[in-house]
Amino acid sequence: MLQQRSSLLLSSLSHCAFRSSAAPLSASVRCRTRRCYSIHADLAGSGKVQGIDPSKLTITKTTTPKDLLPPEELIFGRNFSDHMLSMEWTASQGWLPGRITPYQNLSLDPATCVFHYAFECFEGMKAYKDKAGNLRLFRPDRNMARLNKSAARIALPTFDPNAMIDLIGKFVKLDERFVPDARGYSLYLRPTMIGTQRTLGVGPPSSALFYLIASPVGPYYPTGFKAISLEATDYAVRAWPGGVGDKKLGANYAPCILPQMQAASRGFHQNLWLFGEEEYITEVGTMNLFAAIKNKETGEPELLTAPLDGTILEGVTRDSILHLARERLEPKGWKVTERKFTMKEVADAADEGRMLEIFGAGTAAIVAPVRKISWKGRLIDCGLEENVEAGPIAAQMKEWMEGIQYGDEEHPWSTVL
Amino acid sequence: MLQQRSSLLLSSLSHCAFRSSAAPLSASVRCRTRRCYSIHADLAGSGKVQGIDPSKLTITKTTTPKDLLPPEELIFGRNFSDHMLSMEWTASQGWLPGRITPYQNLSLDPATCVFHYAFECFEGMKAYKDKAGNLRLFRPDRNMARLNKSAARIALPTFDPNAMIDLIGKFVKLDERFVPDARGYSLYLRPTMIGTQRTLGVGPPSSALFYLIASPVGPYYPTGFKAISLEATDYAVRAWPGGVGDKKLGANYAPCILPQMQAASRGFHQNLWLFGEEEYITEVGTMNLFAAIKNKETGEPELLTAPLDGTILEGVTRDSILHLARERLEPKGWKVTERKFTMKEVADAADEGRMLEIFGAGTAAIVAPVRKISWKGRLIDCGLEENVEAGPIAAQMKEWMEGIQYGDEEHPWSTVL
Repeated sequence: MLQQRSSLLLSSLSHCAFRSSAAPLSASVRCRTRRCYSIHADLAGSGKVQGIDPSKLTITKTTTPKDLLPPEELIFGRNFSDHMLSMEWTASQGWLPGRITPYQNLSLDPATCVFHYAFECFEGMKAYKDKAGNLRLFRPDRNMARLNKSAARIALPTFDPNAMIDLIGKFVKLDERFVPDARGYSLYLRPTMIGTQRTLGVGPPSSALFYLIASPVGPYYPTGFKAISLEATDYAVRAWPGGVGDKKLGANYAPCILPQMQAASRGFHQNLWLFGEEEYITEVGTMNLFAAIKNKETGEPELLTAPLDGTILEGVTRDSILHLARERLEPKGWKVTERKFTMKEVADAADEGRMLEIFGAGTAAIVAPVRKISWKGRLIDCGLEENVEAGPIAAQMKEWMEGIQYGDEEHPWSTVL
Repeated sequence: MLQQRSSLLLSSLSHCAFRSSAAPLSASVRCRTRRCYSIHADLAGSGKVQGIDPSKLTITKTTTPKDLLPPEELIFGRNFSDHMLSMEWTASQGWLPGRITPYQNLSLDPATCVFHYAFECFEGMKAYKDKAGNLRLFRPDRNMARLNKSAARIALPTFDPNAMIDLIGKFVKLDERFVPDARGYSLYLRPTMIGTQRTLGVGPPSSALFYLIASPVGPYYPTGFKAISLEATDYAVRAWPGGVGDKKLGANYAPCILPQMQAASRGFHQNLWLFGEEEYITEVGTMNLFAAIKNKETGEPELLTAPLDGTILEGVTRDSILHLARERLEPKGWKVTERKFTMKEVADAADEGRMLEIFGAGTAAIVAPVRKISWKGRLIDCGLEENVEAGPIAAQMKEWMEGIQYGDEEHPWSTVL
């Protein structure tokens, strides 16, 4: 790839100009006859995982530490800790040493490719403080693996995940005072990678920047669960087979705002993404979705979620809930199923008295119980009684997850820093 | 929308946290039963076109003018003129006065939404110098209309297109010395709009920045046409119904790099995007595609291109070629058709001796003749004889287009500044 990258940057057929780098026609053109919708790994990003040396980290502490906000004033992603972690990459040098510096603006040429072609991907994860005062991360390996997949899909560099977790741990320890120590509070971490090449030709960036910022956050439900209502979106489509809906790319977010605003304008908290003529249920807003219904044939309780078919974000919370459900609900008679299921199936379950509960799943809220779904002009009742804000499975999952995240239950998913 | 925007920014169910702004469930939930795949205009971006007052433009000239590069050293999008045009928008104040300043870095908080959620869209257009030394733009109204559509689709503000063209004209005049005066040369203009809100909640940006930078460019074919070869991509999908493939969003570009790199690794200049089981031909790399073939039934020559069904970029060059073809080729017996057509149709035309020529169409090259297309393990011959680098229609279109762009032919598409 470096060879390609250093060859003709001569622009620019096109609407906006591909950097052309083709060699003469190869005699052995590879035959592909199956529609496999996969990107060959050897061309994903920089090809190989690229080394990071955490021992080279430099730290420049702030000279103007911020005041901590009172817990009740914490708003997601609005206030940030004293420092940021950053690391530059170039095609010729690989990853340069990581730096912790005071939180500060990025200064970028207006031609930088992140502004034009959305060379950007990110993660959302949290640092928790347990009762003993230890700092903990929750399954950071999953976030780093996903960030590598996201980066590779848009030709950004990958990295050694363990070395990156090491650096993130050092960062969290330095900004430890921003990790609140009450249940439900945490320090939200936002690892981000952007392409920084300063030319307008469309091609793989020859330079990139990884950075991480951190925002202390309070519980999503400060006064207990509050069920949400959804509007099924059938006029816009979030993701497609062969697309990038399973990656955490910036590209997946901006196009989803209008459907969300439209749902909100009609009084719904979030929109529910359907797919295809069959109206498969895929995701809700920016969460995965779980439906607990009684199986039509057997009457058994079943926890359903859409499969990872390339159109679903591979949520860490989704995966954790599936694991916990298989480990702790299946012995109690539950069936746990990843399969495509439709809006009609959910409506039928509601109509036939088989609806147990529905909830979203994501890092910010862990679970978000759903009261109603608007679909084809009717409101589907998702099984919550009037004065109840969460079903038992959602509430149980939140309890199990928080127990692990805050270290009440020792579990391999929780990494003590 | 402003009301929504100013309400709860309280985060954050989710993978990455929607800013929730829903009112209580509306009694009159609107019924939508048809799958219409359109975003209601009243919720697109800021709703109404927002005023710009070009008379408030301020100009700060550079004190360190750049040396002009020799024409042969001009590379697309790599070197820029002395100045940039920029204009900030806030939800409460609308568009602030435009500013022309020395070309300079943007300084942005690392939480700025453009880095995380791809709130970004752009245009590609050119300024030309005619024989009399006049500066000209080519159909700037089309670029501004498209930028407004792109911006609205991702909840960025729209603007009065005529006022914006006025500002762009002032900018081009100030940096006139960067507009080369030879045929095939031009000053490439890159209007860009980014979301600048400095919070991580996912929602409509409450602030944005429009800016324009300019890069002098040489002819795409300095020594005459050079036909390209394409690889049909059937394992990845650029756009889909209900998606945003018809908008010029950054989100449409980064995900297209790997298929382009894969095509290049097998010796092809660009990839050709197919769609669906039918393998409809949609776009080539970052260009629209035209096929000239003899009609199977009538034997008449026909110029084909994919229709604007929401998955195709609405190319200004595409539209111009269609106009010129209808005006100047139809009287000569050509049929000009916008319809879905498949890779198999093209292969059949080649097999049956009905292939005339194929070419891409975009701002950078105007036309890009195609020699071969790799598809299902075979190479489709696109009708060029061995020592010929462009078919007659491609060559004619380039001549017509350049004649208008450089003012040799007076035409309403060419705007003298």
